[in-house]
Amino acid sequence: MSLRFEVSVRDPTTEARRGRLITTRSVIETPVFMPVGTAATVKALTQEMLEALDARIILANTYHLFLRPGQAVIRDLGGLHRFMGWPRSILTDSGGYQVFSLGELRTVSEEGVAFRSHLDGTKLFLSPEVSMEVQIALGSDIVMAFDECPPYPATHDQVRISLELTERWARRCRAYFDAHADRDRQSLFGIVQGGIHADLRARSLEGLLDIGFEGYAIGGLSVGEEKRHMYDTTAFIAPRLPADKPRYLMGVGTPADLVESVARGVDMFDCVMPTRHARNGTVFTTTGRLNLRNARYIQDEQPLDAECACFVCRRYSRAYLAHLMRAGEILASVLATYHNLHHYLDLMQRIRHALEQGAFGRFVTEFRHRQLSSEESI
Amino acid sequence: MSLRFEVSVRDPTTEARRGRLITTRSVIETPVFMPVGTAATVKALTQEMLEALDARIILANTYHLFLRPGQAVIRDLGGLHRFMGWPRSILTDSGGYQVFSLGELRTVSEEGVAFRSHLDGTKLFLSPEVSMEVQIALGSDIVMAFDECPPYPATHDQVRISLELTERWARRCRAYFDAHADRDRQSLFGIVQGGIHADLRARSLEGLLDIGFEGYAIGGLSVGEEKRHMYDTTAFIAPRLPADKPRYLMGVGTPADLVESVARGVDMFDCVMPTRHARNGTVFTTTGRLNLRNARYIQDEQPLDAECACFVCRRYSRAYLAHLMRAGEILASVLATYHNLHHYLDLMQRIRHALEQGAFGRFVTEFRHRQLSSEESI
Repeated sequence: MSLRFEVSVRDPTTEARRGRLITTRSVIETPVFMPVGTAATVKALTQEMLEALDARIILANTYHLFLRPGQAVIRDLGGLHRFMGWPRSILTDSGGYQVFSLGELRTVSEEGVAFRSHLDGTKLFLSPEVSMEVQIALGSDIVMAFDECPPYPATHDQVRISLELTERWARRCRAYFDAHADRDRQSLFGIVQGGIHADLRARSLEGLLDIGFEGYAIGGLSVGEEKRHMYDTTAFIAPRLPADKPRYLMGVGTPADLVESVARGVDMFDCVMPTRHARNGTVFTTTGRLNLRNARYIQDEQPLDAECACFVCRRYSRAYLAHLMRAGEILASVLATYHNLHHYLDLMQRIRHALEQGAFGRFVTEFRHRQLSSEESI
Repeated sequence: MSLRFEVSVRDPTTEARRGRLITTRSVIETPVFMPVGTAATVKALTQEMLEALDARIILANTYHLFLRPGQAVIRDLGGLHRFMGWPRSILTDSGGYQVFSLGELRTVSEEGVAFRSHLDGTKLFLSPEVSMEVQIALGSDIVMAFDECPPYPATHDQVRISLELTERWARRCRAYFDAHADRDRQSLFGIVQGGIHADLRARSLEGLLDIGFEGYAIGGLSVGEEKRHMYDTTAFIAPRLPADKPRYLMGVGTPADLVESVARGVDMFDCVMPTRHARNGTVFTTTGRLNLRNARYIQDEQPLDAECACFVCRRYSRAYLAHLMRAGEILASVLATYHNLHHYLDLMQRIRHALEQGAFGRFVTEFRHRQLSSEESI
């Protein structure tokens, strides 16, 4: 068995779960946030820094690695873990989301998606089978099914037609994966679509349950819909996913989104927000967000977050970070990224601790209260 | 006394010295290579990484900090060491070299140099007094005199006129420094000019000795002259500098330049080469330079340098670095910079060890031999 999942605590007042996801490479305490390492690197950080952050699993993007350097290069070099010097777990997305983000550059058929590389315009093709082939070659611990992400907004009919295609693709993914993957090390997750329509979410899930997966993801959220739709959809579908399997909300979100979604039953998250924001000068703190490009920080001797214990906050000031950001220095990205990921992973740690202590309900209340009183949104 | 310098070993076969430079902030083993931290950051590295490299002193650029964030900001934040979170020693250059590199954007007078900022075109002025004021405000351990760097090539007459100006400026630097610096913590170095003319070098030195400095630098080399001129000029002037004061060859150079210049009597070096080359994909190894953009490294599983013990070589492959470089990833700069500085600082460590063992002559011979047999130049 390539993946074990154990739930140790169920919160009595919410749908939140405290658990443990065990791959052949690492023990992942859940709820977990997975830093995004698009092109086989969590941008600006060394793998040593990811270890210092105690990240147990990161996400890498199939689309980007398919384009460059190509899965054959990585396979021949011993797989993605060895290629990037990361012995812990890796989840790869299917490439679907990136391909659908290409807009005009792609055409969808029953077989798959034809598209042009955003790097050099080369004609390429991704299908359930190709996506599986790439992810198997990369050696990912968790492989995601290749799904269609309908645009937002979309009509009920458009979403229904799309999720039917996603279901047929999910079946092809399962078949290809079962025939070719290293099932002692690799697991396959299905992705529930259905937009913000409860009936379609339920229908999508039904199809996936019939196929059977090692974990279930909620896709197609955080794509432009109102926040209440995202929360309501998560509240509807997450508790309906199999209780003995990990539940993964894809591409979400802000710190508040993480807290709210854990309360709705989610175990796993990924998002570019902490890393991308860091490179743009936005840092997360326990009292709200700071934009380091704001002139008020030029002479500010304080650490980014007085409550944060990360090495950046112990040594460097807002003034120094503001200077590095204005000067376009690489170190600005390094330090801000480290801090933001520390903020995210520390939040998850505090969530897990609250769950263990039976204090998650109070944690959520206090978090919401603090958020309302912060100057800038958390 | 703000600076102590002790020579513990003089090599019997060359002019090389093994010594120790002691500021109020750190003990600097010489010969030493100082990483360049232009805008209060050694580009792409954290200060924690500089400590892991055991750097005891770094260089920062007065010109860049004068422009942004300005010395008043840094002074009000407690000085450069505190601003950048670097408790060890800092040497600042005078800003002269950068200003003279501006070409058309500057005009020189007896008083100083008027120029326009390369950032926003603002009219600015640097003089011996302003340069001292800035470096004093930064709190540098070692302050460099403000000198004129004549262009190369220049006639004997042009160089003579320039060094006479440099000497008058050196006298003004000394006077301003003595009146305003924190002399318990800060020291002032003079800069010998004179191009590749032995008589002018001697004359420049004579003027500086008459003023008196805590250390002496050789400026105006590595500015386009032939390598043999640089080596010959160093061989002429370095041994004539006071034996009980540190000797600093500014802006030099390749690993071979360091070895050859130590043999000619130099104690201190700085150069952007290891850091700038790293960001462009060129890495230094014990068997020569590698350009990571070369297609041969795409599938190369070896470390950058099989003989290197740095964390980059212990964990990551040439193939991974080549991928990161092609993908324009920040991590490429981080890892290549760390490795290159490790290569430079390790070379200095091996030079110091050879001097202690009385084996420097053999070290130089073997280094030259190895250089001749390497595929690409060392």
